[in-house]
Amino acid sequence: MENGSEKKWNFDGKQKQKGSSVSVRGAYNMLMEKVKNRGDKKPLIRLCRVDPTDNPLYRTSLDASQAVATAVHSYNYNSYSPTVGLPDAKRAIANYLSADLPYQLSPENVFITVGGTQAVDIILPVLARPGANILLPRPGYPQYDSRASCCNLEVRHFDLLPERGWEVDLDSLEAVADHKTVAMVLINPSNPCGNVFTYQHLKRVAEVARKLGIFVVSDEVYAHITYGSNPFVPMGVFSSIVPVITIGSLSKRWLVPGWRIGWIATCDPHGIFHKTGLVKNMIDNLEISTDLPTILQAAIPDIIGKTKDDFFVKNLSILRETANKFYDLCKEIPCLTCPNKPEGAMSVLVKINFSQIKDIIDDMDFCAKLAEEESVILLPGVMVGLKNWVRISFAVDPSDIVDGFSRIKAFCLRYAKMS
Amino acid sequence: MENGSEKKWNFDGKQKQKGSSVSVRGAYNMLMEKVKNRGDKKPLIRLCRVDPTDNPLYRTSLDASQAVATAVHSYNYNSYSPTVGLPDAKRAIANYLSADLPYQLSPENVFITVGGTQAVDIILPVLARPGANILLPRPGYPQYDSRASCCNLEVRHFDLLPERGWEVDLDSLEAVADHKTVAMVLINPSNPCGNVFTYQHLKRVAEVARKLGIFVVSDEVYAHITYGSNPFVPMGVFSSIVPVITIGSLSKRWLVPGWRIGWIATCDPHGIFHKTGLVKNMIDNLEISTDLPTILQAAIPDIIGKTKDDFFVKNLSILRETANKFYDLCKEIPCLTCPNKPEGAMSVLVKINFSQIKDIIDDMDFCAKLAEEESVILLPGVMVGLKNWVRISFAVDPSDIVDGFSRIKAFCLRYAKMS
Repeated sequence: MENGSEKKWNFDGKQKQKGSSVSVRGAYNMLMEKVKNRGDKKPLIRLCRVDPTDNPLYRTSLDASQAVATAVHSYNYNSYSPTVGLPDAKRAIANYLSADLPYQLSPENVFITVGGTQAVDIILPVLARPGANILLPRPGYPQYDSRASCCNLEVRHFDLLPERGWEVDLDSLEAVADHKTVAMVLINPSNPCGNVFTYQHLKRVAEVARKLGIFVVSDEVYAHITYGSNPFVPMGVFSSIVPVITIGSLSKRWLVPGWRIGWIATCDPHGIFHKTGLVKNMIDNLEISTDLPTILQAAIPDIIGKTKDDFFVKNLSILRETANKFYDLCKEIPCLTCPNKPEGAMSVLVKINFSQIKDIIDDMDFCAKLAEEESVILLPGVMVGLKNWVRISFAVDPSDIVDGFSRIKAFCLRYAKMS
Repeated sequence: MENGSEKKWNFDGKQKQKGSSVSVRGAYNMLMEKVKNRGDKKPLIRLCRVDPTDNPLYRTSLDASQAVATAVHSYNYNSYSPTVGLPDAKRAIANYLSADLPYQLSPENVFITVGGTQAVDIILPVLARPGANILLPRPGYPQYDSRASCCNLEVRHFDLLPERGWEVDLDSLEAVADHKTVAMVLINPSNPCGNVFTYQHLKRVAEVARKLGIFVVSDEVYAHITYGSNPFVPMGVFSSIVPVITIGSLSKRWLVPGWRIGWIATCDPHGIFHKTGLVKNMIDNLEISTDLPTILQAAIPDIIGKTKDDFFVKNLSILRETANKFYDLCKEIPCLTCPNKPEGAMSVLVKINFSQIKDIIDDMDFCAKLAEEESVILLPGVMVGLKNWVRISFAVDPSDIVDGFSRIKAFCLRYAKMS
């Protein structure tokens, strides 16, 4: 028999596939390879991924851990989950969200998912129709682009305006929409921009969406992670204007991204999602999709109910400190511009002024050289839709911000153009 | 402003969508509605879903629960998981699988998934190409059909032969394949048939697949759940003939379907999956997909390493008892025929002889009336590709088999044709 390696196989994976081939994780893995190439080993500083939990400073509450352990030891939650999630978990999430809304969500409005990631994976194919398009923010979160492309949902981008605190460019939003536009996505507090949208601005976005006949997908995985002047306002507040699909998660606020507790909530007092068939399509998709492990679902009521306020207060205070430190240090580097001090979420966008540096061709090159020479990892802006910017995550130890920016400064000086 | 409910929205969910609209879970939910319609309440007997864990008889090991609780309390596993899974978990799974293979898998051959469900969701889009098709067994597991249809992978079915212990009809397999066929799926031990394929038969399947130039996806989520004469043989044993993508899970053997610990393993000593680009495409897909919660990944080495053999022996002994009881009781019902005593997995297919009953039009009607009149839930065979059969899960309390079959017998007698 011929050798298996010489057999011709029908499958050819080198044919072009749909979907973005570079994800945030892909870029991160690529940059880590650059660091590995270094001879001497400066300690790695990762200002790239939004996952603070490597650092003991960002540790979840004892109550949250205890809630999971209790569910495990009960032996009551080893079965498959119901399609849309455990009823008690759905109720706890509905109540949690309703505290910030002018009306009460019911458990039927909540669909539990394996993190915000699966929430996106569930929603986008449901919205996809032949010829349909969806409006995504630029800069944004590339998961939406990748998934939309996988399910043949055309992507169009509207702009966020750095000079206006990353508010939505409403003209650009209207300009890209047409009668085949089914929805728009907004991320608030904003990843990657670090801003928090005001009540008034969100209301205007809702009104424009209504005028366009499109739904709003409001990605609020950073809900309540705010430490500036704007409080967090859920888009669901405006759901009597436009129906809102809210994506949420415990990952960021409870510092447990690896637990993958997420949800979709339909904020829709007029029942439009039912009438248009969206809810049925979503349940159909959930029925063939994997679930959040039942033991984690079972822990949700206690995680939400028992965690004390001082846990959140402490975490926000650390984030405020690192955000401030970042902003002050960034100002000292002439070739970098941060248009706004971050007020929410855990990352921020910084512009590279290429007129002031040499021998670096773009943001990807900037990040690759920085990784290789300084063992500092930033996310190239192109990954979030904004070429020649970088995304910096400041949810790290404050000392990593100080050390990281000292190395970034040295790096930028080395590449500075002589004036 | 006009009332939100009267606004015209661009989205219309009533347009036909891709993908099967009825899943196993959907059928189950529909039958449960029938039970709810009953006036008096006979205790519900579910012989429908393959999830024994509602019953304390089927309880996971203390070692397994302890492993998860330890991971939670360590606070070391709250971060996002690496794209392909935690290295120690991958290593533990590679070693676990290698014990049954003629060669050693490396951790790089293992990709951790959120249950077998996500493994299917990852693999099928990777295999999908314009015009490509995949061969699925009939009867089979409908998740494959639904997912393939979602990603534009054409489905063709080959037959399993009840008169030959549900072996693959190799002629039918060859007949449906062509040069656009990329892979075939085999489920062993078999859901829904309850058979275990022999070494010789698997080898022949591998040889035919090789001749056709197609990969084998071997769904082994019921690996080692065997209690008849055929031992479990992993398809990976034949991976020098044909490269094999193995889907596995701890769900069934450890009685923890709700923990969603699954994996994909590439059994491919000739490196064909690398050469054809399949591994790269799979990693690309994993990078934009959600992960098994890290705390569960962290528990895998201890779950596998510390669970004692007597745990498995006890569970197999219970399954053997319920399978035998099922088979004996089924023989007493003239309008039902079970071609083979189950030897593996947790379910079996039974044929309804419509020549002997009246006033029931098909398997769906049989299951609906049985649910409504007797509070016994079976899965209609049409859900697994075989109309006018039913799938019966016997991974229940032996007393449920006795009570369930007593009710099924009464039901069949009520509908028996007078001869």
